[in-house]
Amino acid sequence: MESTRTFVNGCPTNFVSAGDRGLLYGDGVFRTLRIMAGRALWWPEQYAKLASDSARLMIPCPSCADWEADMAACLNLAEHQDGVLRLTLTRGEGARGYAPSATPIPTRLVQFSPMPVDVDLASLGKIHRCRLRLALQPALAGVKHLNRLEQVLARAEWSDPAVAEGLVCDVEDRLISGVSSNLFLMRGGVLFTPRLDRCGVAGVARDRLIARAPALGYPVTVTDLSCADLDDADAIFLCNSVRGLRWVAEMGGRSWPLHPVFTALRESLWAD
Amino acid sequence: MESTRTFVNGCPTNFVSAGDRGLLYGDGVFRTLRIMAGRALWWPEQYAKLASDSARLMIPCPSCADWEADMAACLNLAEHQDGVLRLTLTRGEGARGYAPSATPIPTRLVQFSPMPVDVDLASLGKIHRCRLRLALQPALAGVKHLNRLEQVLARAEWSDPAVAEGLVCDVEDRLISGVSSNLFLMRGGVLFTPRLDRCGVAGVARDRLIARAPALGYPVTVTDLSCADLDDADAIFLCNSVRGLRWVAEMGGRSWPLHPVFTALRESLWAD
Repeated sequence: MESTRTFVNGCPTNFVSAGDRGLLYGDGVFRTLRIMAGRALWWPEQYAKLASDSARLMIPCPSCADWEADMAACLNLAEHQDGVLRLTLTRGEGARGYAPSATPIPTRLVQFSPMPVDVDLASLGKIHRCRLRLALQPALAGVKHLNRLEQVLARAEWSDPAVAEGLVCDVEDRLISGVSSNLFLMRGGVLFTPRLDRCGVAGVARDRLIARAPALGYPVTVTDLSCADLDDADAIFLCNSVRGLRWVAEMGGRSWPLHPVFTALRESLWAD
Repeated sequence: MESTRTFVNGCPTNFVSAGDRGLLYGDGVFRTLRIMAGRALWWPEQYAKLASDSARLMIPCPSCADWEADMAACLNLAEHQDGVLRLTLTRGEGARGYAPSATPIPTRLVQFSPMPVDVDLASLGKIHRCRLRLALQPALAGVKHLNRLEQVLARAEWSDPAVAEGLVCDVEDRLISGVSSNLFLMRGGVLFTPRLDRCGVAGVARDRLIARAPALGYPVTVTDLSCADLDDADAIFLCNSVRGLRWVAEMGGRSWPLHPVFTALRESLWAD
């Protein structure tokens, strides 16, 4: 991880303890933030998610002020550039075994990476339909936790650099999301996005779009979606906090034109 | 993690890179070995599992000789004591994002911990019935990978130090395993153990018991088991590589006496 700057518990270091439960069990949560000129976009929503996700795992979340101090130090070192900031919170160290401590001392990591070169491309072009199916686990659904092997395996299904994303279904063939983005389908003037209470990650960009699309005349319905719904879709959009909203031009031999409302939706998502 | 001795890629250090995918995504596998007087029990089987589990995740496994060199150095530092050795293999560092490198440089960790005080207790006494249900994910089933949040949440369900294990079912209410052990039920002179091709971890102790029990007159059937099968069981056994075979004396208001074959099975499992 060259050109990455890392703070661990407020100190500049590229290392974490080999006894950290984040490493041993994936016992933690994370967020990925877009940084513009040294400023973290959507920070209040990101902190709220970090706090609610860590509460789901019974990991005490450091205060907003603690994170902000780490982020300021890390972004200062990054010379107020544009980039990506990953915040990770683990349950810290503990005795051997799965049992979580009743009084954990969590580890917080703040890691800055330079901006990916293609970050502002609004079209996803052609995307991949993943063979991997997401397991149903309501106890972890919606949470951006560190158990991400399903995403690693799904992302490993293609190596064509022209394909930027893959679409994943759950084990019961419901459409869920992109590998690293949330999914919206447009049909007949309504936006549909999958329920994420059985699997998937409920991202900040998704919440923002659900809140903002109605003002542009597009109500959002959160529901179960199937593969058949792709055939009927007027447009397929994927969103995350780093790249905002992107549209799918081609998948599985079918193609879609740029939808007239896309640009307004994309701008609405970025707007303060 | 006091009194733990750690080697990372052959070097004595208590730290790993904050950019390691084991930490970022739980992208790796591990084994837990029992150490007796500086010797790792069941090493050939443990290495075979490490190699096959890492192959499932497309992580190149270091050679047996590499692991043995690390283990010798670590156990030498541990002064040939009894204890527990954890071997962890991650996909190492990589660029930001889920995409695994086509040419990963894996990280190997070897961590020694002193023996738990109650390690040789053959009776589990009373065990807990976990509310958490394991998700079905054939792509990861059987593998001892680093995505262990389900086990952390299941183990967090009880804090009574007298309760050493919990029994977990899958989301379709099939019996699967203990939180950190494999399950065998005895009924009418036959041992039954759950299929682990949809979820669960297929441990070395389980393989050994499946191979050895028939010689004691107890054939083993690998099959689907339900909660109702607990009611009919003459005995419930749980096994892992650190504690060997243990028997359940009580669960959910029901109790079981020590089964006549238990001691012979336990000794057969430990025998070379």
